[in-house]
Amino acid sequence: MKVTVLAGGVGGARFLKGLRHHLRQAMPDGAGGTTAKITAVVNTGDDMWLTGLRVCPDLDSVMYALAGVNDESRGWGRSGETERVSAELTAYGVGWPWFTLGDLDIGTHITRSHLLRTGLALSHVTRQLASRWDIGIELLPMSDEEVETQVVLDGPTADVPEVVHFEEWWVRYRAQRPAREFIQAGLTEAAPAPGVLTAISAADVVVLAPSNPVVSVGTIMNVPGIREGIQTTPAPVVGISPIISGAAVRGMAEACLAAVGVRTGADAVALHYGARSEGGVLDAWLIDSADARLSDPIARAGVHPVVVPLWMNDVQTSANLAAAVLDAASTLSAAKS
Amino acid sequence: MKVTVLAGGVGGARFLKGLRHHLRQAMPDGAGGTTAKITAVVNTGDDMWLTGLRVCPDLDSVMYALAGVNDESRGWGRSGETERVSAELTAYGVGWPWFTLGDLDIGTHITRSHLLRTGLALSHVTRQLASRWDIGIELLPMSDEEVETQVVLDGPTADVPEVVHFEEWWVRYRAQRPAREFIQAGLTEAAPAPGVLTAISAADVVVLAPSNPVVSVGTIMNVPGIREGIQTTPAPVVGISPIISGAAVRGMAEACLAAVGVRTGADAVALHYGARSEGGVLDAWLIDSADARLSDPIARAGVHPVVVPLWMNDVQTSANLAAAVLDAASTLSAAKS
Repeated sequence: MKVTVLAGGVGGARFLKGLRHHLRQAMPDGAGGTTAKITAVVNTGDDMWLTGLRVCPDLDSVMYALAGVNDESRGWGRSGETERVSAELTAYGVGWPWFTLGDLDIGTHITRSHLLRTGLALSHVTRQLASRWDIGIELLPMSDEEVETQVVLDGPTADVPEVVHFEEWWVRYRAQRPAREFIQAGLTEAAPAPGVLTAISAADVVVLAPSNPVVSVGTIMNVPGIREGIQTTPAPVVGISPIISGAAVRGMAEACLAAVGVRTGADAVALHYGARSEGGVLDAWLIDSADARLSDPIARAGVHPVVVPLWMNDVQTSANLAAAVLDAASTLSAAKS
Repeated sequence: MKVTVLAGGVGGARFLKGLRHHLRQAMPDGAGGTTAKITAVVNTGDDMWLTGLRVCPDLDSVMYALAGVNDESRGWGRSGETERVSAELTAYGVGWPWFTLGDLDIGTHITRSHLLRTGLALSHVTRQLASRWDIGIELLPMSDEEVETQVVLDGPTADVPEVVHFEEWWVRYRAQRPAREFIQAGLTEAAPAPGVLTAISAADVVVLAPSNPVVSVGTIMNVPGIREGIQTTPAPVVGISPIISGAAVRGMAEACLAAVGVRTGADAVALHYGARSEGGVLDAWLIDSADARLSDPIARAGVHPVVVPLWMNDVQTSANLAAAVLDAASTLSAAKS
């Protein structure tokens, strides 16, 4: 059993943790693991160089969560953090004072930046970082190339827009300043990281995690070759709505959807992704019980709707959601054969 | 009054602190400072790139000490340090586990490395870092170019020597493995940093701090142009012995002196530097009261010996030593005119 998941940060991490938990129970290897192979293809479009350190917010959120060292309450970074280094950077007048990196987290960034500068590819470095922990999931960056998501905002004068890094818009401005447009520098020249296309084409199930459909899953699929890989894989493609009852489960996905003209609704996002039979990427789409009434428009768009509880409150509810994804996939596979 | 001091790390820092204290009292500017101008030309031959961070041990020792944020008991680094980042690097398997950088210190290295990578010269970056504190002394690296001191050690087989960075020999091996030779990569191509030659030629006194004569003061003087600058400056050149009673005051200078064939004695080091009248760099040489009997051989070598207490136990004893240096310089200037 091979499951490949396209994931952003926190939502992707929670789903992956539930999936791992479910598969360790449903397909145990007798040594505490699973015989199933889980591959996560993680968004790197929010990555940045900050005071000479390569920061990969989504890769780190996923790695920390799977390693069990993430800060659950804060939703990002390591648990038990301190911010002594960041305070020094601020005192020296460098960096982003509103983007405080923890000391343990900086240890990751120094290591990554150092290894990248020795000439290693991000996919290699990611594997080396993750090897510190026994996470049981293969973590792949979507690409080894640098992609930088920038946000076009209204500037001080109407005809001169202001362009900021996605993380500046997201963290400093809390996505409160309307985004006119996203620019993803480097994206059209980027190639999928080694292993990504195979993980999609050879999978038994491809999952779109309940991550931001625009700047996380959307970015991954815009790496040349990945969308085509998803459209053509023999595996069923199952997505999970990041929207429940017309609101984003976490993050500020509304502001991202608004920028690309998509309503914040579980049905609207399904239609935005589109049915594979219609040139899109979805075979099935999981929506929350609260959105059951949206099954019809989703089905009419050619996507198989599945109504289940979507809230991932703990590892068990996340595992239940993962089980529902695999059920939907096996239903689709059975219908096809 | 312009005083220019060639300095290594801890010994240089203590002397500079005493000199500043003395001049603030002897030549006050009415605002807590001094009308005198103090310039420190600091050794950068022990600098290194470590996991992508530019570490400058001597510049930092001097800056932290003058800022009053150094760890007096440990003799290096910042006071109140923690080592959370270094523990992460070790857990990820990068860096030197025996060369633990503190978190506050790493803040300095990240800032420096970032500014260097933007294209700024080390002298500019050093000024920017020091501007955070009101240290009242101009800190100049000996050179903006990278110089790397390597130590040639006996290898596993007799004909294949092992070459390690100076800090590895110093910190990891505590200078216990005999050094065959020092290699200072980049030194002959290095140029004095902007301001260094002027600080020497326009000084009223040039001081060789009681720092390591081989790998600190010796390295500075081996930057092409600096030894000549010292030999030709109209200012008297006064050195302070880093050796008292046949032993190094701090550090492991014996092992460095042995590598260049110099006995560990206050007189032997004076002869190693040599009299300016004989093509060397010294006019006067301060030795400790315990070494008074060495005045004769020093005087015979053409260097004016001055016997004073050399131990810098606190800022007052350091200030007294600085006063003795300035006294010796004015005696020499008076004799000359």
